Amino acid sequence: MTTPFTCSLAELAQRLGATLVGDGERRVSGLATLSDAGPQDISFLANKAYLKYLAETRAAAVLIHPAHAADCPTARLELDNPYLAYAQLSRLFDPFNAQIASGVHETAWVAEGVSLGSNVSIGPQAVVEAGAVIGDDVVIGAGCVIGCDSVIGEGSLLHANVSVYHGVVIGARAILHSGCVIGADGFGFAHDGGGWHKIAQLGGVILGDDVEIGSCSSIDRGALGDTMIGNDVKIDSQVQIAHNVQIGDHTALAGCVGIAGSTKVGRHCMLGGGVGLAGHLTICDGVQVTGMSLVTNSITKPGVYSSGTGAMSNALWRKNAVRFKQLDDIAKRLARLERDNRT
Amino acid sequence: MTTPFTCSLAELAQRLGATLVGDGERRVSGLATLSDAGPQDISFLANKAYLKYLAETRAAAVLIHPAHAADCPTARLELDNPYLAYAQLSRLFDPFNAQIASGVHETAWVAEGVSLGSNVSIGPQAVVEAGAVIGDDVVIGAGCVIGCDSVIGEGSLLHANVSVYHGVVIGARAILHSGCVIGADGFGFAHDGGGWHKIAQLGGVILGDDVEIGSCSSIDRGALGDTMIGNDVKIDSQVQIAHNVQIGDHTALAGCVGIAGSTKVGRHCMLGGGVGLAGHLTICDGVQVTGMSLVTNSITKPGVYSSGTGAMSNALWRKNAVRFKQLDDIAKRLARLERDNRT
Amino acid sequence: MTTPFTCSLAELAQRLGATLVGDGERRVSGLATLSDAGPQDISFLANKAYLKYLAETRAAAVLIHPAHAADCPTARLELDNPYLAYAQLSRLFDPFNAQIASGVHETAWVAEGVSLGSNVSIGPQAVVEAGAVIGDDVVIGAGCVIGCDSVIGEGSLLHANVSVYHGVVIGARAILHSGCVIGADGFGFAHDGGGWHKIAQLGGVILGDDVEIGSCSSIDRGALGDTMIGNDVKIDSQVQIAHNVQIGDHTALAGCVGIAGSTKVGRHCMLGGGVGLAGHLTICDGVQVTGMSLVTNSITKPGVYSSGTGAMSNALWRKNAVRFKQLDDIAKRLARLERDNRT
Repeated sequence: MTTPFTCSLAELAQRLGATLVGDGERRVSGLATLSDAGPQDISFLANKAYLKYLAETRAAAVLIHPAHAADCPTARLELDNPYLAYAQLSRLFDPFNAQIASGVHETAWVAEGVSLGSNVSIGPQAVVEAGAVIGDDVVIGAGCVIGCDSVIGEGSLLHANVSVYHGVVIGARAILHSGCVIGADGFGFAHDGGGWHKIAQLGGVILGDDVEIGSCSSIDRGALGDTMIGNDVKIDSQVQIAHNVQIGDHTALAGCVGIAGSTKVGRHCMLGGGVGLAGHLTICDGVQVTGMSLVTNSITKPGVYSSGTGAMSNALWRKNAVRFKQLDDIAKRLARLERDNRT
Repeated sequence: MTTPFTCSLAELAQRLGATLVGDGERRVSGLATLSDAGPQDISFLANKAYLKYLAETRAAAVLIHPAHAADCPTARLELDNPYLAYAQLSRLFDPFNAQIASGVHETAWVAEGVSLGSNVSIGPQAVVEAGAVIGDDVVIGAGCVIGCDSVIGEGSLLHANVSVYHGVVIGARAILHSGCVIGADGFGFAHDGGGWHKIAQLGGVILGDDVEIGSCSSIDRGALGDTMIGNDVKIDSQVQIAHNVQIGDHTALAGCVGIAGSTKVGRHCMLGGGVGLAGHLTICDGVQVTGMSLVTNSITKPGVYSSGTGAMSNALWRKNAVRFKQLDDIAKRLARLERDNRT
Repeated sequence: MTTPFTCSLAELAQRLGATLVGDGERRVSGLATLSDAGPQDISFLANKAYLKYLAETRAAAVLIHPAHAADCPTARLELDNPYLAYAQLSRLFDPFNAQIASGVHETAWVAEGVSLGSNVSIGPQAVVEAGAVIGDDVVIGAGCVIGCDSVIGEGSLLHANVSVYHGVVIGARAILHSGCVIGADGFGFAHDGGGWHKIAQLGGVILGDDVEIGSCSSIDRGALGDTMIGNDVKIDSQVQIAHNVQIGDHTALAGCVGIAGSTKVGRHCMLGGGVGLAGHLTICDGVQVTGMSLVTNSITKPGVYSSGTGAMSNALWRKNAVRFKQLDDIAKRLARLERDNRT
């Protein structure tokens, strides 16, 4: 059990560069939505859809844009981007940080000659193999395995049961969630007419700084040359990144995305849940793809892209899906009718 | 190696509340399909499609509905729901249960002050962190990691290499399969115009009673407030449940389903394999969605829903898929022709 | 750190059965693409698209088809299938093999009576439960768990944190990547009108020889009878194989594929990324399915199959996707117009 973090409104205003209206001495110990907040909590208004909850909030104070200040029934911290301020405060109130023990746990196994930075935490039953380099302030959770010669940048946090293969380079301040696998072999085989011959995957994986990888996601190592994930790239759970993919800085991939081999995704892109990108494509900067779309061609203009069809009742869908198989025929018949009508 | 379980037909009839027709002393040691069963096995007829195998079955006895009793060439246990009876018997014949050792394995690591119920089994190399509460008759498999302050309800079974984060509450009789991850961070970031700022995920995950989670599935913790999985919810492998999702009692999700943040799924729903639900939706009770459908709007009526198109030959598909991009144009041209024809 | 492997061109030519043109004494220590190769590397030309890089390659030698020999500016190894030769060489240059320690690691736990072949390597924190049979030259990575009575065939390599349940049979020379789970319960429940009753999954999983399974993939055990994966089957990451699926020899499944229960896939099939197969289907030999297609009917003719629609701009897509819901109506109206025009 950990002692909850508490903080005065004045302190919070100072941290956030906000204008405080209300009692600066008042202390808060939690962060909650407008409707759930109690008198010990601070809350935030980041979306007009929640304005309806503002009048009745029981929060001690609200992070709010000056434009809505007049509607706030309680103390407030005024600033331009309340959602960003919420993000900043959320990290103060996270009990997880207080639970991390420092040092190498007695049941962990660290090979001789591993380079350990200062203030490193290696959890129970974790394994760090020969030649690995672990930066300052790194946390390696219980049951993690760090392969030979891999490098974990300073301040990175690996939750329990993460697998990092050999020869992987992870930048500073990464957050890797349980069950994710960095550096497994890409899917490469040569065919001899009868069967498959494995192509050893000799490249590595390079993660930039400030990368987050969700639970049970896979980032495969390169065949020749490395798979490269840029700085500040955020990857959700259940994602598959194949060998030699490159992802530009600040790009975000939602859950269940799959990217096939050698595709390059630009900077500041956003791929919705379940999106699939075929191999060997180039997606330019600033592209958004909506959920479950399939992309089989390169994209050269920023913008929003989609494919597929939305759900409808199964009875209606059955009729329409059958017609999809006749669509080319329908188009030709329509063109014929148009010709006939013209003459 | 474990001694196989054996049981007399009379005992089985009593357990199941079935009417036995045949020799009650006869013992069986296995459960098999009608076509695979040998003379030591009991079998079942739960689907008319398998009636053709009934006449030639070598099973010692068959679980069968009275309507088909006349066709049964061997001893039979008559009851109304043979498939349910098969489910009940299957658990008797599962060798896995006999393989579980009790007690804390010598290579496991359990933090001081963890609350352990009676008859708990903690497997080799498992980790239970500070403040966790482990109920009676819980089995924690080899290599599992249970985070700080998490609660595992009585009778729950965690197979090998499950990761449970801190502050997660799991009800009674859960079954969690290997590689699943309960309580990883939801995918939440604020954007400052240039890049991403992490929103600490301060909520937890609450699983009701009798929940099963498949291998390599992810149930993310809430941002504020908890992700909630109801009682008797069954979740298959490779499923992604995002932060603050709520799933009603008795709902079943097949493999590879993805549900985006804050969506609420009702009770008694069934989502087929690979279905994707967008975020912030409400799906009412009693909804079925067929495989690989994308749902981007809330559903307010029970029923069956679908999207997408079925597979066809690639040559035909190429022609039709091109026409899909012209569909709005086709519809407009058709309307124009109709107008022209009318005048 | 491992000493890099080096080899003379003459030796390589002999291993590959290639015709060497150039200095046989020259030694190489790496393998790289034509454009990345330096003077210590060997390279290959396996695709005409890369011919443009041939003239300026700095490689010590190139694996090349005799048809292109005249264009090669450096030493060459001529052979009919340079891509296959690249696959063969790649395994020589893989540093991973040199990093494997032999013997049972001091922190591993192996149950009494486990059968261990010769030259077995069991990594740190790994677990091998009672009754398991581990073949000669098997490598079990750090943190792996092998369940009771499972069999691992000779020469198989399990990377870190693989979970193999009880009663699973894995053939020779398997490669299992981190986070994959072999033998978790299939998704089977009987419904009693109110809720779900678990069907214990009494079958196992049988993997043939030369199977590779990607990271975080799930191969579920059979309900009754086994899930069966043929010889030389290659399965990528994030794949879900449900209970009682059968996959024929030499078939390859790309990332994120999902196959529902009891479906049989033939030999020499290739399923693209994200493909979904419904349950109880039969897919004949020699079928290819393109990425993200949904297959809901059996396929009886070899060939290439597809479904879905490709991505387009969201603005265009919105118009067309709405029309998809009217497609049956459009088809009927077109037929009516045709009738009217004829009369």
